[in-house]
Amino acid sequence: MEIIKDGIMEAFLWRDACKFYDPAKKVSDEDMKFILEIARMSPSSFGYEPWRFLVFQDFTFLNEIKEHTWGLVNSLNGASHIVIILARKKVDMQAGSAYVEYIMNECQRLPKEVLERRRLIFNEFLERDMGAITEREVFDWSSKQTYIALGNMLTTAALLNIDACPIEGFNYEVLETMLEEKGLIDSHHFGVSVIVSFGYRSREPDHEKTRQPVDSIVRYIDHSSSDIL
Amino acid sequence: MEIIKDGIMEAFLWRDACKFYDPAKKVSDEDMKFILEIARMSPSSFGYEPWRFLVFQDFTFLNEIKEHTWGLVNSLNGASHIVIILARKKVDMQAGSAYVEYIMNECQRLPKEVLERRRLIFNEFLERDMGAITEREVFDWSSKQTYIALGNMLTTAALLNIDACPIEGFNYEVLETMLEEKGLIDSHHFGVSVIVSFGYRSREPDHEKTRQPVDSIVRYIDHSSSDIL
Repeated sequence: MEIIKDGIMEAFLWRDACKFYDPAKKVSDEDMKFILEIARMSPSSFGYEPWRFLVFQDFTFLNEIKEHTWGLVNSLNGASHIVIILARKKVDMQAGSAYVEYIMNECQRLPKEVLERRRLIFNEFLERDMGAITEREVFDWSSKQTYIALGNMLTTAALLNIDACPIEGFNYEVLETMLEEKGLIDSHHFGVSVIVSFGYRSREPDHEKTRQPVDSIVRYIDHSSSDIL
Repeated sequence: MEIIKDGIMEAFLWRDACKFYDPAKKVSDEDMKFILEIARMSPSSFGYEPWRFLVFQDFTFLNEIKEHTWGLVNSLNGASHIVIILARKKVDMQAGSAYVEYIMNECQRLPKEVLERRRLIFNEFLERDMGAITEREVFDWSSKQTYIALGNMLTTAALLNIDACPIEGFNYEVLETMLEEKGLIDSHHFGVSVIVSFGYRSREPDHEKTRQPVDSIVRYIDHSSSDIL
């Protein structure tokens, strides 16, 4: 166990949002497939997997639109792969949608009684519990699930000594429109959630890793706790 | 590398949103600290770490409010730890807020020119690029960051053969109010993002792990790609 912990912590200390990729080094097909497989195996709310992954190795199109994707500039200069992660919209993420029915019936193969219960509770969960009613609120909820996959992709890459950079620096609406025009997404069902690039660093980060001290972010609550804001 | 991949994949195949915890088995303080340390080291947008972790080992309070937290019921019956993950609200997550200034100055110790640039671009990024303007939109963006930490906590637990269950099944508003009344959060700054429990399974899952086939979720885009929806 200590060896496993050491390996995980080493990867977390080593990883950094890579700003300087070495254009000469490419992530192998096999490693990229593995990282995507880890995304695929990631958990999501109700197991609805509200995601899709567009994998670019040829950056021609991304270079064409780079004035709208400022966060991508470093990655376009030498990353090996850029993955645009899409999340599903409300048309899919609601009880009775063709997509949710497909997942429950064809993929999860839920027993009839579970399936019927899910049909009943899902909208109540989204609307009453999560307060996710509008297109945007439901999309953001889908998008949150993709950040679980994102976290796992980043961590898996680090464990394999592959660099990565998570990217939110772009205009979401513009990118969605441009992907739609290029025929790369159906914006009725999908929106852009986040981007992540992979490759190998050409030099070490020029800053130290910083985090708030653990006491600032973790609170142990016991029965007598109160006023511990 | 193959050994590392085998270990990661084994953990992903083994993990499951645990429904049946063994009340007799507790996660050691040391392991729990490690999982929280991994959360702390997780990346977040701009490195702003918009999260806080409330760790419960004594479930007295959580049992009192369980009628509002249906997703917690299985965990209350035998989990070792329950962690309520909080995300920061708009009052903190905007340029010039005391919190962002604290992170940039005290924690990241950014050079003056970087700091000034960030002050300039941050609101533009949030408002123009992400379209995150309302309280809810900014909170959901904060919350997305916590799902990176969540994914890393789940994966780290699985690598250590510790079971976990991510939980969204509760009324967010009600839980926030109750935590506030108990003095456990300052709802001016924080809202509830998601919950995760840890412990050890008492029996194997009663269902197989299912996922969509890789071809349904991954699209490799090359220069000639189009109409590949």
